[in-house]
Amino acid sequence: MANEATKVTDQQSFFITLIGHCKEYGFIFPSSEIYDGLSAVYDYGQLGAQLKKNIKDEWWKSMTQLHENIVGIDAAIFMHPTVWKASGHVDNFSDPMIDNKDSKKRYRVDHLIEGYADELKQKDEAAADALLALMDELLKNDDYPALKKLIEDHKISCSISKTCNWTDIRQFNLMFSTAFGAVASEKEEDNIVYLRPETAQGIFVNFLNVQKTGRMKIPFGIAQIGKAFRNEIVARQFIFRMREFEQMEMQFFIRPGSQMEWYNYWKETRKKWHESMGIPSEKLRYHNHSKLAHYADAALDIEFEFPFGWKELEGIHSRTDFDLSQHAKFSKKKIQYFDNDLNEEGKPYGNYTPYVVETSVGLDRLFLTILSLAYAEEKWNKEDGSEDSRIVLRIPAKIAPTKLAILPLLKKDGLPEIARELMDECKGSFMCFYEEKDAIGKRYRRMDAIGTPFCVTIDHQTKEDKTVTIRYRDDMKQERIPISEVKKRVLEKIS
Amino acid sequence: MANEATKVTDQQSFFITLIGHCKEYGFIFPSSEIYDGLSAVYDYGQLGAQLKKNIKDEWWKSMTQLHENIVGIDAAIFMHPTVWKASGHVDNFSDPMIDNKDSKKRYRVDHLIEGYADELKQKDEAAADALLALMDELLKNDDYPALKKLIEDHKISCSISKTCNWTDIRQFNLMFSTAFGAVASEKEEDNIVYLRPETAQGIFVNFLNVQKTGRMKIPFGIAQIGKAFRNEIVARQFIFRMREFEQMEMQFFIRPGSQMEWYNYWKETRKKWHESMGIPSEKLRYHNHSKLAHYADAALDIEFEFPFGWKELEGIHSRTDFDLSQHAKFSKKKIQYFDNDLNEEGKPYGNYTPYVVETSVGLDRLFLTILSLAYAEEKWNKEDGSEDSRIVLRIPAKIAPTKLAILPLLKKDGLPEIARELMDECKGSFMCFYEEKDAIGKRYRRMDAIGTPFCVTIDHQTKEDKTVTIRYRDDMKQERIPISEVKKRVLEKIS
Repeated sequence: MANEATKVTDQQSFFITLIGHCKEYGFIFPSSEIYDGLSAVYDYGQLGAQLKKNIKDEWWKSMTQLHENIVGIDAAIFMHPTVWKASGHVDNFSDPMIDNKDSKKRYRVDHLIEGYADELKQKDEAAADALLALMDELLKNDDYPALKKLIEDHKISCSISKTCNWTDIRQFNLMFSTAFGAVASEKEEDNIVYLRPETAQGIFVNFLNVQKTGRMKIPFGIAQIGKAFRNEIVARQFIFRMREFEQMEMQFFIRPGSQMEWYNYWKETRKKWHESMGIPSEKLRYHNHSKLAHYADAALDIEFEFPFGWKELEGIHSRTDFDLSQHAKFSKKKIQYFDNDLNEEGKPYGNYTPYVVETSVGLDRLFLTILSLAYAEEKWNKEDGSEDSRIVLRIPAKIAPTKLAILPLLKKDGLPEIARELMDECKGSFMCFYEEKDAIGKRYRRMDAIGTPFCVTIDHQTKEDKTVTIRYRDDMKQERIPISEVKKRVLEKIS
Repeated sequence: MANEATKVTDQQSFFITLIGHCKEYGFIFPSSEIYDGLSAVYDYGQLGAQLKKNIKDEWWKSMTQLHENIVGIDAAIFMHPTVWKASGHVDNFSDPMIDNKDSKKRYRVDHLIEGYADELKQKDEAAADALLALMDELLKNDDYPALKKLIEDHKISCSISKTCNWTDIRQFNLMFSTAFGAVASEKEEDNIVYLRPETAQGIFVNFLNVQKTGRMKIPFGIAQIGKAFRNEIVARQFIFRMREFEQMEMQFFIRPGSQMEWYNYWKETRKKWHESMGIPSEKLRYHNHSKLAHYADAALDIEFEFPFGWKELEGIHSRTDFDLSQHAKFSKKKIQYFDNDLNEEGKPYGNYTPYVVETSVGLDRLFLTILSLAYAEEKWNKEDGSEDSRIVLRIPAKIAPTKLAILPLLKKDGLPEIARELMDECKGSFMCFYEEKDAIGKRYRRMDAIGTPFCVTIDHQTKEDKTVTIRYRDDMKQERIPISEVKKRVLEKIS
């Protein structure tokens, strides 16, 4: 137990260090920081924006360019409000909440009770377990008066006001809403438009458009990267759970009955893809959902071991024909596929509503995954016995924000001019960084800290034999190569 | 005059055709079309999404990768509400509106009066001009009672209800707002968060973060691509004016006093960039703003001749130190730059608030520009005297959604197998399309219509001498080249 506790503390401390590093080097800033931030919203800085783009580009290429039968779309965040009635979000995408009347602080009921149960566990584990079991039962039955009584009976108090002065429990929908101003209606709801809480519905409502105009044949997929928004009451753990986040989703449309085959295919394929992004297999695991969502007949998470524990990185869901059928019902349009291939296989051919297997990865979570794996603090003894150290981000070269640092040893003797020539040769092909100030060791350290996989140094020897020193981030090894080979060398390593 | 009118009609008809083409081939769909659409919101389909991404990538590369002193960021759509007080949007980003009580339809006051003046012009041009002059005067003075009287005196009616039963005139802010649910406040405004109406402020509030963590030296720029939202009452002209749109902005931070130099630099540079995207110089012009916004000391639009006339494609604005000073004032933080270089130049060095020159291009507008230039209907006589025709999208090869179509002449004789080998060789490097059905002429026409610059056909001769026919979209010329050279040939043409 002591070891367990220590481990958690180490991980927490690592997480705090990582967040600090993200801020210090321009990966991630709290949103609107000069105004003391906006809760659970973050901005990607100059290096974070580039790393995020590189991750997106890899996913997009792997989905669309490398799969003949997957195309991408880019649907708007605003959608017709009926979309969210059809999808079930208007009625079901909500959490029971309770407000403390004194502090005005709002809590998710389950979080409030779980927090109390955690404390109780120290004294009486059985009582805590019983409490949680009762809570689950009451939540399942939406028995809010009994849940409120449970909170009051246990004297569960607000962490701010310390009082038990609670409102009734109410459902709060997690969708953000806004109003379109085209109609001067007295009924506000006539103008309500939601910010999409998931990108998936943008794909479903465009199923017919894409299938027909792209002449797609089942099985085929539609991929999309885009923002989604959820009014999370408890949004925490840095960029893991934000109110505004980005999803990379692919909906794969298939014949009814083939869903388990494709579910297993994408389960394997997506895990392999994460491994291709440098995530070790042992840091990933499958977690099957025991309780399925209303639209699914099978579902699992690909989990990563984050600094705060195993958590969902990507979801694989067999969504059946739920979404397309619901949209057919609510839109009164026929949303079906005419499968000519069935005829060629000697089966009666006809129309059906396709089934769907979804792969849905949180882009921000993948970003956090990659950074938390990349970050390392290293110490070693130099030849003279003194200690040296560095912080290094071992971001895979193909997605590193900056690929090559070009560093003239001195700011004179024509070295910057040679360096500039190399910049001009390389910068059209990949992201380069030029720096002529500070001692070379300091410049290397800085490149290590932002994850630049290659540095080349131009020195006086370069003027004589047209060679440079290339230094590799991961092992700090250096070698002398012709300046004419730098571009080729980097291109080989990043592709 | 008759010619003028005909020209307009031709252009309108061209525009309708173009919109139809975008829909038919999967470039742009009305948002939530199965629910009869959402006003002034569109989705990018399978080809549109790729073309849009290619345009973004070109801009991003030209700004960040090719400029050592420009870095990119990716700030959130949600920002602290005080940002929009500081920027002036809460107080000033609004239009006077009037509602018809019978139809409930809302009008922008200027649009309503202008519509009436257009009709009046047919009968009495002088009266129409006088009316518009009076309207301008009253709008300038925010004299809403007099404006309402003007509407009533002229019996200007609602186009739907045909009545003159109007509400009072009110200001409607163009920002969309939503509510964060973390605090159980009785005052709704405590929770209000806006959807950003421009991406620029995400750059300004991060100025210090980026400058310090990136060790940026003035002059330097921060670039950003992202969604912005405006509650436009009259949103029309397809994707030209949408409620949800995407901006590509770069804010260039400079020394006070140097703004005209940089304003002119970016004015030239940005026009040249548009030309590098295939827009002919004569289709672009500068339009200087006669009335400057409150933050600007110089401003112009780079206009393009759209099918509906000359309109803004990109704005170049000298924003002075307005934004940074406002954020300093409202956040009570010191937002200044310490200019060490001034010292090296023998001038007294110290802190100052940088000036800003902004370049801001509408991504959706640029998309529309490129498509409207690319679209052509062509007719010619074949050798046998009969007529042939095609629709072709001459999208510049470097941004075309699909680069290469690989077409086995027949679906047998081992031709698909050879085609698949070529697919496997090429698809890692650029977007390829494989099609083995339909007559080859029909397949070429389809590739013309979606703007694929190169087609290669694999036929029986390929099996003998390992050559293929490569066909060029723009002039329909064909030549025989070794299959081993296809990838290289395409890479040369698209880079």
